[in-house]
Amino acid sequence: MTTAELAQQFMQLMIEEDEEGYQAYWSDDIVSLEAEQEGPMARVEGREALKEKHAWWEANTEVHDTSMQGPYVFGDQFAVRYTMDVTMDGERSQAEEVGLYTVKDGRIVEERFFYGHGEHT
Amino acid sequence: MTTAELAQQFMQLMIEEDEEGYQAYWSDDIVSLEAEQEGPMARVEGREALKEKHAWWEANTEVHDTSMQGPYVFGDQFAVRYTMDVTMDGERSQAEEVGLYTVKDGRIVEERFFYGHGEHT
Repeated sequence: MTTAELAQQFMQLMIEEDEEGYQAYWSDDIVSLEAEQEGPMARVEGREALKEKHAWWEANTEVHDTSMQGPYVFGDQFAVRYTMDVTMDGERSQAEEVGLYTVKDGRIVEERFFYGHGEHT
Repeated sequence: MTTAELAQQFMQLMIEEDEEGYQAYWSDDIVSLEAEQEGPMARVEGREALKEKHAWWEANTEVHDTSMQGPYVFGDQFAVRYTMDVTMDGERSQAEEVGLYTVKDGRIVEERFFYGHGEHT
């Protein structure tokens, strides 16, 4: 499977919110990094820890709207652009991110979230 | 200057098509990489070679429309999403890319273009 094929399938499963499906593309040792350098979510390592991160997100946010564009592929990496309209801690905001994913042996070994700093966000 | 500030200024200068302005953020040794692994434009190294690449693009394409979103920042890297509607070799097409830029000592040392493989392109 090429990086492009894996990326397309992974993204389609995310759009369908098929957790079991897209998590099958995670390496057991997947590392998840946030641009924000502070807090317990800055770096999460391993499948179980990342499931907990997702559960934390589910429990602490209300998602009003979300969109994805991509994937964009270079070698063994691909990027997905996200826009989201969420309420967290009682505050509603619109945000944009780019997730940069690294693939090894058919699994995602790292995801890295770049935060939007644009006037268009 | 933070990576976010540099990225915002660089992107603004690109929007304004201020070549001299945005090229001032290039390192003299900048490396420019395209996802496509073939051809003379796959890897271009150095300021002069990258200027020639831009000149080649200008001479060989008719750009009908273009847009940029971002920048998206993580540490010393930032991403910009591009959409474009161009005619090249007599063929008009719409494409999406993500440029991933790496900053060192206040200059861009690498740009790397990820190609869109989505149904939304």
